[in-house]
Amino acid sequence: MRVFNFSAGPATMPLEVLERAQSELTDWRGSGMSVMEMSHRSPEFVSIAAEAEQRLRSLLSVPDDHAVLFLQGGATGQFSGVPLNLAAPGQPAAYLNTGSWSKKAISEGEKYADVRVVADEKASNYASVPDEGSFEVPGDAAYLHYTLNETIGGVEFPYVPDAGDVPLVTDASSTILSRPLDVSRFGVIYAGAQKNLGPAGLVVVIVRRDLLDRARADVPSALDWKAMDAADSMLNTPPTLAWYLVGLVLEWVEQQGGVEEMGRRNKAKADLLYGAIERSDFYSNPVQERARSWMNVPFLVPDPALEKPFVAAAAEAGLSGLSGHRSVGGMRASIYNAMPIEGVQALVDFMTDFEQQNG
Amino acid sequence: MRVFNFSAGPATMPLEVLERAQSELTDWRGSGMSVMEMSHRSPEFVSIAAEAEQRLRSLLSVPDDHAVLFLQGGATGQFSGVPLNLAAPGQPAAYLNTGSWSKKAISEGEKYADVRVVADEKASNYASVPDEGSFEVPGDAAYLHYTLNETIGGVEFPYVPDAGDVPLVTDASSTILSRPLDVSRFGVIYAGAQKNLGPAGLVVVIVRRDLLDRARADVPSALDWKAMDAADSMLNTPPTLAWYLVGLVLEWVEQQGGVEEMGRRNKAKADLLYGAIERSDFYSNPVQERARSWMNVPFLVPDPALEKPFVAAAAEAGLSGLSGHRSVGGMRASIYNAMPIEGVQALVDFMTDFEQQNG
Repeated sequence: MRVFNFSAGPATMPLEVLERAQSELTDWRGSGMSVMEMSHRSPEFVSIAAEAEQRLRSLLSVPDDHAVLFLQGGATGQFSGVPLNLAAPGQPAAYLNTGSWSKKAISEGEKYADVRVVADEKASNYASVPDEGSFEVPGDAAYLHYTLNETIGGVEFPYVPDAGDVPLVTDASSTILSRPLDVSRFGVIYAGAQKNLGPAGLVVVIVRRDLLDRARADVPSALDWKAMDAADSMLNTPPTLAWYLVGLVLEWVEQQGGVEEMGRRNKAKADLLYGAIERSDFYSNPVQERARSWMNVPFLVPDPALEKPFVAAAAEAGLSGLSGHRSVGGMRASIYNAMPIEGVQALVDFMTDFEQQNG
Repeated sequence: MRVFNFSAGPATMPLEVLERAQSELTDWRGSGMSVMEMSHRSPEFVSIAAEAEQRLRSLLSVPDDHAVLFLQGGATGQFSGVPLNLAAPGQPAAYLNTGSWSKKAISEGEKYADVRVVADEKASNYASVPDEGSFEVPGDAAYLHYTLNETIGGVEFPYVPDAGDVPLVTDASSTILSRPLDVSRFGVIYAGAQKNLGPAGLVVVIVRRDLLDRARADVPSALDWKAMDAADSMLNTPPTLAWYLVGLVLEWVEQQGGVEEMGRRNKAKADLLYGAIERSDFYSNPVQERARSWMNVPFLVPDPALEKPFVAAAAEAGLSGLSGHRSVGGMRASIYNAMPIEGVQALVDFMTDFEQQNG
């Protein structure tokens, strides 16, 4: 029996996608082989790859002047990839710091660029995002980097920052495809697949092509956006199985009604869960209302000693993956696209019961 | 109906492995979720990961003082990873050049190290390997790098080069697990998974731990062996689905009798195919006998105009993926562990028929 899986990533996937992959796993559409056995240069796989790219372009209305890359190494790889592709050695690069993932991007960026943290949410204990227009981006910065959604802190930008002429770069790993996003505002969007796109082992990079001439000479080929764009992401052997599964997820999103419909559903799910937390004196969420993530909902109980019993009893009830990140404790429910509202309702019902027994 | 798939990688996998993965794809052993949906920090996935590592250690008798890493970015990623982890900026690094993949490793190495090509098979048109003891490795070299098996040229080292006190590094992508290898002779062995280990999107790095203190400060975290070793390859989210599938392949190799048995089978397969080519005046293989690969068998027909008809008729007969690499043309049969001798026999029979009709 399938459980409701609230893990932050790798995360739950649509059952229809898994069943489709399962049915094709030993023989993809009469080819006599699994997708994972196909040469990445075969017409079959090239069509799978191109179709996935087209679906992503269409779902996100990616402008024609942006390349879409399917790479390896995750968002962490792109923490290095961003400065190596965009900044000359030692050039200033601006970052917003809104929590754990911002910090990792900053720390990796410091290996290659002169990092300027132009806004830092330390004062709010990383429970919010900077006010719109409250920070200045140096005009000579190679880019402004921010974390669109902090998967651990549960903090999401409700607006797209204005960086003037400086290219805007965002880590959208845990929010991509969850609601509409104006891609044309961005120089670079990157997103690890293992939340809203598919399995771990693939990262999508959407990059405006006029930025592709800035790479340092010593960028590793596996992170070299320009070379990857020229080779249709096949400079080396791509993660073919993950790419195929991402394609199936994109097809599913399309069938559900696209990102607008995802946004409606995700807002309803988030409202249901945050509403239950708000109405309760037992549960709490530390994040400022305007910056609450639609995807990752951290919450606390009054007594930390109740956390383990909560997580264990929830798992017994078929609600899995509710521990908070090991760096912060507490609980966290990740409610990505593939989590149906029935799962969120089941969680809210469980929370009510648990409060009655322990409140 | 399944075909015999002779692709060079991604490549054929054992049907038993695919069927096992298929049966578990929506619910791994009662967990209520697919392996690809599991948190990489969950006890379930941690056990899958640890079991795969143990199996690889046991199959290859990896010494305890070597770390085994499961990373992303393929062998191409490690073309950068090797110099970034082992060589100080500008330090000499020795390479043997035996063909296409050596050249790619060399070209990437030149971004970071003072590359010294100490042997080059240009004179043989990359149809052999240097004689044992015929080259000298500078004592101040950070390492000696060679390509154990050239997937495109079909050239394989029949011996392990002696590099003295200089750490020996090899790209074993297309030969790992195909026959016994004395891992203790090596500083580093790396291998992309998509030939003998599983699907694309994962690279195994086996590295002697005393080499882990040499990394440059600017090595990207996703390529940082020391940091990855300290984090059990989970510094970032690993390619969990690929890791699991590699584990299933390793279990299959174990069940078949391990690398000794793989070596016996692979020698029988190679003898069958090379023997058929040798006995024919129609087919030819350009590689010197002592350096012929057991895994990748390139061959030619007298008239290049017959290549496309050969490949097309073979595909009709259920023998897929026989085109040579686009950089060299001709034909190539990759006969990895998962290719049964029945597949090679079917190919030899087809070749005999084709010769009779076209010779």
